[in-house]
Amino acid sequence: MFGGITDPDAVRYIGGALAIGIGALGPGLGLGWAVNGAMQALGRNPEAAGDIRSTMIIGAALAEAVAIYAFVIAIIILFV
Amino acid sequence: MFGGITDPDAVRYIGGALAIGIGALGPGLGLGWAVNGAMQALGRNPEAAGDIRSTMIIGAALAEAVAIYAFVIAIIILFV
Amino acid sequence: MFGGITDPDAVRYIGGALAIGIGALGPGLGLGWAVNGAMQALGRNPEAAGDIRSTMIIGAALAEAVAIYAFVIAIIILFV
Amino acid sequence: MFGGITDPDAVRYIGGALAIGIGALGPGLGLGWAVNGAMQALGRNPEAAGDIRSTMIIGAALAEAVAIYAFVIAIIILFV
Amino acid sequence: MFGGITDPDAVRYIGGALAIGIGALGPGLGLGWAVNGAMQALGRNPEAAGDIRSTMIIGAALAEAVAIYAFVIAIIILFV
Amino acid sequence: MFGGITDPDAVRYIGGALAIGIGALGPGLGLGWAVNGAMQALGRNPEAAGDIRSTMIIGAALAEAVAIYAFVIAIIILFV
Amino acid sequence: MFGGITDPDAVRYIGGALAIGIGALGPGLGLGWAVNGAMQALGRNPEAAGDIRSTMIIGAALAEAVAIYAFVIAIIILFV
Amino acid sequence: MFGGITDPDAVRYIGGALAIGIGALGPGLGLGWAVNGAMQALGRNPEAAGDIRSTMIIGAALAEAVAIYAFVIAIIILFV
Amino acid sequence: MFGGITDPDAVRYIGGALAIGIGALGPGLGLGWAVNGAMQALGRNPEAAGDIRSTMIIGAALAEAVAIYAFVIAIIILFV
Amino acid sequence: MFGGITDPDAVRYIGGALAIGIGALGPGLGLGWAVNGAMQALGRNPEAAGDIRSTMIIGAALAEAVAIYAFVIAIIILFV
Amino acid sequence: MFGGITDPDAVRYIGGALAIGIGALGPGLGLGWAVNGAMQALGRNPEAAGDIRSTMIIGAALAEAVAIYAFVIAIIILFV
Amino acid sequence: MFGGITDPDAVRYIGGALAIGIGALGPGLGLGWAVNGAMQALGRNPEAAGDIRSTMIIGAALAEAVAIYAFVIAIIILFV
Amino acid sequence: MFGGITDPDAVRYIGGALAIGIGALGPGLGLGWAVNGAMQALGRNPEAAGDIRSTMIIGAALAEAVAIYAFVIAIIILFV
Amino acid sequence: MFGGITDPDAVRYIGGALAIGIGALGPGLGLGWAVNGAMQALGRNPEAAGDIRSTMIIGAALAEAVAIYAFVIAIIILFV
Repeated sequence: MFGGITDPDAVRYIGGALAIGIGALGPGLGLGWAVNGAMQALGRNPEAAGDIRSTMIIGAALAEAVAIYAFVIAIIILFV
Repeated sequence: MFGGITDPDAVRYIGGALAIGIGALGPGLGLGWAVNGAMQALGRNPEAAGDIRSTMIIGAALAEAVAIYAFVIAIIILFV
Repeated sequence: MFGGITDPDAVRYIGGALAIGIGALGPGLGLGWAVNGAMQALGRNPEAAGDIRSTMIIGAALAEAVAIYAFVIAIIILFV
Repeated sequence: MFGGITDPDAVRYIGGALAIGIGALGPGLGLGWAVNGAMQALGRNPEAAGDIRSTMIIGAALAEAVAIYAFVIAIIILFV
Repeated sequence: MFGGITDPDAVRYIGGALAIGIGALGPGLGLGWAVNGAMQALGRNPEAAGDIRSTMIIGAALAEAVAIYAFVIAIIILFV
Repeated sequence: MFGGITDPDAVRYIGGALAIGIGALGPGLGLGWAVNGAMQALGRNPEAAGDIRSTMIIGAALAEAVAIYAFVIAIIILFV
Repeated sequence: MFGGITDPDAVRYIGGALAIGIGALGPGLGLGWAVNGAMQALGRNPEAAGDIRSTMIIGAALAEAVAIYAFVIAIIILFV
Repeated sequence: MFGGITDPDAVRYIGGALAIGIGALGPGLGLGWAVNGAMQALGRNPEAAGDIRSTMIIGAALAEAVAIYAFVIAIIILFV
Repeated sequence: MFGGITDPDAVRYIGGALAIGIGALGPGLGLGWAVNGAMQALGRNPEAAGDIRSTMIIGAALAEAVAIYAFVIAIIILFV
Repeated sequence: MFGGITDPDAVRYIGGALAIGIGALGPGLGLGWAVNGAMQALGRNPEAAGDIRSTMIIGAALAEAVAIYAFVIAIIILFV
Repeated sequence: MFGGITDPDAVRYIGGALAIGIGALGPGLGLGWAVNGAMQALGRNPEAAGDIRSTMIIGAALAEAVAIYAFVIAIIILFV
Repeated sequence: MFGGITDPDAVRYIGGALAIGIGALGPGLGLGWAVNGAMQALGRNPEAAGDIRSTMIIGAALAEAVAIYAFVIAIIILFV
Repeated sequence: MFGGITDPDAVRYIGGALAIGIGALGPGLGLGWAVNGAMQALGRNPEAAGDIRSTMIIGAALAEAVAIYAFVIAIIILFV
Repeated sequence: MFGGITDPDAVRYIGGALAIGIGALGPGLGLGWAVNGAMQALGRNPEAAGDIRSTMIIGAALAEAVAIYAFVIAIIILFV
């Protein structure tokens, strides 16, 4: 797209943007699904709120981790 | 797209736009799913409104965080 | 696309457009899902209208925030 | 696409088109989902028409706002 | 696509086409969803036809507005 | 795609095609959804055929209008 | 794709193909949905066959119209 | 893709292929949906086989017509 | 993709491949849906096997026809 | 992609690959749907196994035919 | 992508990759659907295991055949 | 993408990556569907665990085979 | 995109970004599905919380592993 | 994208990224589906936890294998 640019650091901006942009897509959607499930479980069985909330946080942390991998790679691409 | 441009900073505009643009897609949809679940839980079980609302906010904060990663990267791309 | 253009500011128009364009996709859909859930909850349980409406607004504000991140980035790309 | 064009203002047309084009996709679909939910709620519970209609308008206004962000950015790209 | 063209007004045709083309996608689908919901509500509860029809028109007007934003931008791109 | 062409009017053919092509996608699908809903309502509640048919035509007219916007823009791109 | 071609009429073939190709996608799918709905209504309520068939034809005509817009534009692109 | 080709008729092959290729996508899927509906109606209500079969053929003819538009345009692109 | 090729007949290979490739997508999926429906009808109502099988073959022939249009166009592109 | 290649036969490899690659997508999915339906019918009504199996093979042969069209075109592209 | 390469055999690698890559998508998914159906049938009706397994293998062989077409074409592209 | 590279073996890396990358998409998803079905069958009918497990392995082997075709082609592209 | 850049290390930024970006999409979504299932199981059967949580963690670890493969490859691309 | 780069090893970064990136998409999603099924089976039938867990691990290993094929190919592309 930028045929006249000769500074290789300019590639970093596109790389970092793609890493976090596409990388946030899956975990963002996945976390929404996870919370949606927790909500429906709470609506059906409110007295299990403790179990549901703690299991949701464990599961969401696993999905959040995927987003953090993408974040770390984006930071590495931009600064290292 | 801009073969004649030689200023590497111009790449920042595309990078920042892709980072927040695609990065907002997943969390935006995911938050919608999460709230949709909270709504259906409330409609089925309104007396658990406290539990549902607090768990929804915890879960939504996790999804929101993914959007904030993308926002932070976009700001870094544009200003740093 | 515009090989003959040498003004780097022209990149801003594409950047800002991508930021708000793609960035509005997720929150726009997500808000629709959230409101859809609120509607179905209201239809099933109209006497919980207060709880549903206030929780919907909290959740929708979180999704709206994602759109506002994209809006802020688009403004930054266009003016800063 | 237009290698021979040297007027940077020509980029505005593509930018504005992308901003409102892609930006209208999410809210347009989201509003449809929201109204679909309101319709189903009305069909199930017609005597709650007041609550449903007012909550639908609040929620739809939030989704409409996302389309308006895209519209504002498109106008800014085209005229400012 | 048209490397040999040097008239910047030629860009308008692509811009206007993208604005209304992609911009009609979301509202067109969304309106279909809204009417689908109204139909199902009518089939389930025909005596609420008045409420359903008036709420459908309010909601559809909000989705139609998104299409009109895209139409206005397309006209601006083509003529202004 | 056509690097050797220098007549800017050639761009009109692609523009008009994209306007009506992509622009027909949403309303075409949306109208199908709307009629699908009307059919299911008729199958469930045939004695409400009058209400269903008239509301379907109002809603379908709103979706048809989106297709007509795209048609008008395509005609403008091709002839004006 | 065809950098060496200098006859602007060659663009017509791609334009007409895109107009009818993409333009047939939405109505083709939409008509399938509409007929699917009519079939399910007939299977549930065969004695309403007259109402279902006539309403299906009205609705399908509206969706067919969208395909005809694309056909008309394709013919205009190819011959006018 | 074929920068060295200077015969504008070569564009016809791509144009005709896109017209029938993409144009067959929608009606092919739509006809499948229509027949799927007819099958389910037959399975639920076999004694209405006559009504179902005749209405299916009317509806399928409407969807088939969309494919024929694309076929006609492909023939025009290839031969006229 | 093949900038150095000057034989316009080479375009035929890509054209024929796209015509049958994309053109087989819709009917292939649609036929699967149609047969899926016939299977479910048979599973629910095995004594209507004759009616189901004959109607399935009529409907599948209509969808098969769409694939044959694409096949005919591919043959024309490759040989005529 | 291969600007330096001047042998038009090299185009055959891409053409044949696209023909069978994309052409196998629809029938592959469609056959899966068809068999899925047969399985569910068998699970619901095992004593109709003969009818289900023979109808499945008729329907699957129709979908298989679409894949064979793509196969034939790929062979023609590669060898003829 | 590789403008400086003049060996036409290099095209084979991309051709073979596309043939098997995209060609494995449909049958891979379709086989999953077929097995999913067999599993659900077994879960509902375990005593029909023999019929289900043999019909599943017949159907899966038909879907597998589509993958084998793509495999054969990939081998032909790479070696013949 | 790499206009200055003249070593045709460099194409192998992209070819092998596409073959296994896209080729793993279908079977990966399909296997997930197959196991999902087996899980649901087990949950509904745990005493049929032997039949379910053995049929699942037969079916999964068929889907795995599709992935192995892609793997074999990738190895051939990279080493042969 | 960066025709003037001659430092091959610049390719690493795009490679690492694509590896983690696209590679995070599948596991992110998959983990969301897995947690969603665990939530629904907890809501239906809260006294099996121990079994559900431990099986969820085993399954999620398998999906997480896929994300870690992509992370490892991204690190290798960026540093090795 | 990198027209000025002449080191063929730079292609390895893109190849390895595509292999693991796209290759992780299918198994990541598929594993999520598999675990989702196991969770729902556990929620419905917790006393079959042993059978469900062991069958889930067998099935997940098959899907994991597909991801490992992509990982192996990525390692081969990067190092061999």
